[in-house]
Amino acid sequence: MPLIAFKPSGITVDVPEGSGLLEAAKIAGVSIEAPCGGHGICGKCLVKILSGKVDFKNTGMMPVDLLSEGYVLTCKTRVLDEPVSVQVVTQFDKEQGKFSKTSEDMLLISKDLMPSNDDLDFLIKKVSLIVPPPAMGDGLSDFDRIKKAVLAELGCQELEIPFSVLKTLPSVLRDKENENRTNSERGDDGYGNGNHVEGMITIAYLEKNGVINIVDIEPLNTTSQNYGIAVDIGTTTIAVQLVYLPEARIIASKTGYNPQIECGLDVISRINYARKPDRLEELRHKVLGTINSMVKELAAAHNVNQRFIYNASIAGNTTMVHLLMGIIPEYIRLEPYTPALYEVPYIKASDLGIDINPNTFVFIAPSVGSYVGGDITSGLLCTSLATNSEDVCLFIDIGTNGELILGNNDFLIGCACSAGPAFEGGGIENGMRASQGAIERTEVAKDTGIAEYSIIGNVPPIGICGSGMISLIANLFQTGWIDAAGKLDRTRPCASIDTSTKNAKYTIAPAESTQNGNPILITEADIDNLIRAKAAIFSACRVMLQQIDKDFEDLTTMYIAGGFGRYLDIHKSTIIGLIPDLPSTKFKFIGNSSIIGAYMTLVSKKHREKQHAIFQKITYLDLSTEHTYMDQYTAALFLPHTDSSLFPNVK
Amino acid sequence: MPLIAFKPSGITVDVPEGSGLLEAAKIAGVSIEAPCGGHGICGKCLVKILSGKVDFKNTGMMPVDLLSEGYVLTCKTRVLDEPVSVQVVTQFDKEQGKFSKTSEDMLLISKDLMPSNDDLDFLIKKVSLIVPPPAMGDGLSDFDRIKKAVLAELGCQELEIPFSVLKTLPSVLRDKENENRTNSERGDDGYGNGNHVEGMITIAYLEKNGVINIVDIEPLNTTSQNYGIAVDIGTTTIAVQLVYLPEARIIASKTGYNPQIECGLDVISRINYARKPDRLEELRHKVLGTINSMVKELAAAHNVNQRFIYNASIAGNTTMVHLLMGIIPEYIRLEPYTPALYEVPYIKASDLGIDINPNTFVFIAPSVGSYVGGDITSGLLCTSLATNSEDVCLFIDIGTNGELILGNNDFLIGCACSAGPAFEGGGIENGMRASQGAIERTEVAKDTGIAEYSIIGNVPPIGICGSGMISLIANLFQTGWIDAAGKLDRTRPCASIDTSTKNAKYTIAPAESTQNGNPILITEADIDNLIRAKAAIFSACRVMLQQIDKDFEDLTTMYIAGGFGRYLDIHKSTIIGLIPDLPSTKFKFIGNSSIIGAYMTLVSKKHREKQHAIFQKITYLDLSTEHTYMDQYTAALFLPHTDSSLFPNVK
Repeated sequence: MPLIAFKPSGITVDVPEGSGLLEAAKIAGVSIEAPCGGHGICGKCLVKILSGKVDFKNTGMMPVDLLSEGYVLTCKTRVLDEPVSVQVVTQFDKEQGKFSKTSEDMLLISKDLMPSNDDLDFLIKKVSLIVPPPAMGDGLSDFDRIKKAVLAELGCQELEIPFSVLKTLPSVLRDKENENRTNSERGDDGYGNGNHVEGMITIAYLEKNGVINIVDIEPLNTTSQNYGIAVDIGTTTIAVQLVYLPEARIIASKTGYNPQIECGLDVISRINYARKPDRLEELRHKVLGTINSMVKELAAAHNVNQRFIYNASIAGNTTMVHLLMGIIPEYIRLEPYTPALYEVPYIKASDLGIDINPNTFVFIAPSVGSYVGGDITSGLLCTSLATNSEDVCLFIDIGTNGELILGNNDFLIGCACSAGPAFEGGGIENGMRASQGAIERTEVAKDTGIAEYSIIGNVPPIGICGSGMISLIANLFQTGWIDAAGKLDRTRPCASIDTSTKNAKYTIAPAESTQNGNPILITEADIDNLIRAKAAIFSACRVMLQQIDKDFEDLTTMYIAGGFGRYLDIHKSTIIGLIPDLPSTKFKFIGNSSIIGAYMTLVSKKHREKQHAIFQKITYLDLSTEHTYMDQYTAALFLPHTDSSLFPNVK
Repeated sequence: MPLIAFKPSGITVDVPEGSGLLEAAKIAGVSIEAPCGGHGICGKCLVKILSGKVDFKNTGMMPVDLLSEGYVLTCKTRVLDEPVSVQVVTQFDKEQGKFSKTSEDMLLISKDLMPSNDDLDFLIKKVSLIVPPPAMGDGLSDFDRIKKAVLAELGCQELEIPFSVLKTLPSVLRDKENENRTNSERGDDGYGNGNHVEGMITIAYLEKNGVINIVDIEPLNTTSQNYGIAVDIGTTTIAVQLVYLPEARIIASKTGYNPQIECGLDVISRINYARKPDRLEELRHKVLGTINSMVKELAAAHNVNQRFIYNASIAGNTTMVHLLMGIIPEYIRLEPYTPALYEVPYIKASDLGIDINPNTFVFIAPSVGSYVGGDITSGLLCTSLATNSEDVCLFIDIGTNGELILGNNDFLIGCACSAGPAFEGGGIENGMRASQGAIERTEVAKDTGIAEYSIIGNVPPIGICGSGMISLIANLFQTGWIDAAGKLDRTRPCASIDTSTKNAKYTIAPAESTQNGNPILITEADIDNLIRAKAAIFSACRVMLQQIDKDFEDLTTMYIAGGFGRYLDIHKSTIIGLIPDLPSTKFKFIGNSSIIGAYMTLVSKKHREKQHAIFQKITYLDLSTEHTYMDQYTAALFLPHTDSSLFPNVK
């Protein structure tokens, strides 16, 4: 019987040849999620085969480059007659801020788009150097000595130094600061443990137009203490990655709600809320507070001194960036729709209020329009639109706003539509983010109308996330329990349907099965919300294509990004008319491409330059001035569409 | 009888032809100080003849260029048979922060050294410009529009903007901020009073290496709202001038004690005091607090919004600059005597803690050695050492430290000696600064030993200032009431001398004549202090001259600067051996040259460049390593000197 070893736990198990790998994991007591019930659809049971051969039956879900790296779906893998070593990758490693070697989202991105080791080039760099000691009559101040050493080392003429660092020079150069620091703060490289080099200091700096802008100066060699954060500020969710820069390795990441949702579910309501200065400040503090507590938790869990976080790359939509900076967003919303800024200058972390090295500079991704922001210029880095390909592709980021970019190496046009927060669980009776306890997939029995479901994390359910709702509405529509207008069937008796009130309800999980003892249900108003959301996106796609006289068939690839991207069921999305009825090979899920793009620009200058080129290339289309958009939208307010010829394969 | 009109009061008086102008003022009830008793020595009764001819008998005290501008000493002026208009200039205009057209100190400086209108070139400039309004589809953010307009106006490629200003762009460009501002804040030029120009804004900026560093952006044209401050931070006193920049006019100035004296009288004791971080902070807050309250008072008295103070030029000695910045000064004092910095980069006002426009940059004069600081590189701008003259000159700034610079266009060497605070009234029983209530000049009766005295401000005396002490000690020495060692005569009875205690005392003003009812006296310890102070300075001068194989006779001019400079009696200073026994024409009093230099660098780029050239040229001589200095010092601890041949004209 072949021996199966699971990493990182080290648990091993003997199973008969031909056993399913998922069953082997169950026997071993290793938790691998398979919410789709082993159909090879959800992709959640992804593992990496470190050694040994297995029999993996690809359902088409797995990108080729992942396959070539040894990744398989556990549920579609059988063991052969040889020992196997399996690396388990789970979402919860990330959610709980534990170490995970690879970020799951990043696995969805074609490897040739990711930064290679050669591309690693941070905005703020660290270098150690030796400053000769002062000598009687040399006429050099401490600042003169530092300046001389730094400019010689870096071959530059000019140096700028923040006041707070300037003040520390006498101590740093005489290694006084070090006396008060612990070994771990001194770096892992052994300096400070007797391996002291006289005059050794480390500088963190930003080079700009030939000027060295000092960020910090530390005694000894601290070059190995070098971290960065990538941040995605969505209207509904915020994601933060902590990255060990020398290896461009994501140590851990966290995702959570944007607490600004208390002040408005979409960007327009936030803009309205921010009209009073104290409320603008409230919104700013809300987003900063969340980012800072995530950074603090991540840093604390991995013993990272936040002072050693020198690089930060932030991606967010135009309004989110305004709110983060505390800038009145009002004029984004008012004709002629003028944001305060598209390209954001580097901002000092302490000015912005992010709790990393206070003197460092934060990179914020550029926006291209009032509603096509830095999340999109970041997300596009995850697509062939950032390459020289002539293939015409469409990129959709489905969040509270839907943003769309269409083009190839020749041109890029972009637009945005308001989908509302439904896909992220917002504004839905029992909606929630795609996190532990969320119903994310359903099957509805045609005869009884009762749903079976799978839950993220295999715990009693708390609510339903966007992909769960898409799944459910597709099911209900296919089984005839709702009609094309999204109304629940009132003609047949069904234990799950309650039409006694005006806003009819469908119960997914009964009270006794849920975490808080309340039933999880969806109302007709919720269904209507979701139909409006999908109609907004689908009609925006069509208007964009019309602009260049193309149709869906002309697209080489359609990239779908968003918090649920990874778990989105294409087939069911087509059934409700969210995405067009195309062969599944034309779709590419790229997950939260905004945070991946933020990671790319965090670690690679090449990617920052790519992003800048994309930013300059995109022509922004304002849908509100496109007279066909409203007609298209109204036509899409059915399941799948009023024009069923657009969805020949549905039903 | 000619009519005499006094400005600015407008009081007129008829007096007979041939009357003294001082008498005319007395009759008119116009207060003009003449503490020297009308001998044309103290220079305090300086007035300007605006129209009409007078008969002025120059005693040699008046610089030629002042004479040519119509200035005369009231006490040496008689009226002729024609009407005269007289502009009264008094110290108290300045002390009380009232308007004074000309700074008294500046009158002491040769006119060709002062900045001319052509030289006016501020570090931070203001310019108004028009930003075109946003247009639908122009693809320009507010920041883009500002950037475009500013770079086009100033012909530059790069722009940097502080975060706090960036945040205000939407409001400023839409003139929202203005709604909340008063008319006076909008400038005096009539904008805001119906003369509104669409898109008009004003920027304050610093250009550096072709980069425009925005300091502030204001709606409308506020170019006329443009102020600066010149600051001199002495170890004992602090002086601040408020300057209206478009005319380079000193609106008002204030002088006060440096409250750091509570923590140590000289720089060495301050450095020692600052060894604990909280004490360093205490010293920083003390000096900042004083500067800020002076700036606030000056601004309030003249309705100046402190936000409109964009330029600041600060001069102080090396230790004062360290303490102002909160930098450990310890290593100035410890071998190899390495300050944290000589040349100070431009520092943001809010970082430094000076309450002017928070985003503006403060200029701090460069230091050349541990004890030759920015007060000296500023003060030298008031001398021919800042010109191309071949004449070898000596500049002495007599403060708590004595600083000396010797040289010409070819070379400059500098050194410092510790005089202690005696000349500024510090460490002296009844010592005080040269301000209202200070005894500043005495005459001792040879037979009785009793002193007559004159007081600044003609009020009952409070104490005695440096020039008063020099005067008194010279008197007592000449009349034989003290010997060459500074000991009071114990052989003759004298009502003013009390030798009953170990530390014998000399009473200058009896209790009944003083403001607080205590006698004003000087002790033998005080006399000893003053002798040590003068010995330190005189011996430093000799060591400097020895370095270049010269003697006092070789000097073309000896510049004397210091808080008492204006009122220093050369003859009496020679009697005590503070300054060499040279013809009085060789001396030039230049008052507080540090604040005048700070004013020059505030308003003129040419003077900032001059100062930089001086800074680079000075060779710093460390007296502590000159073995002859101690011998010279010991030899000078007598009145006037152990080698009386050095003072042939004394006695």
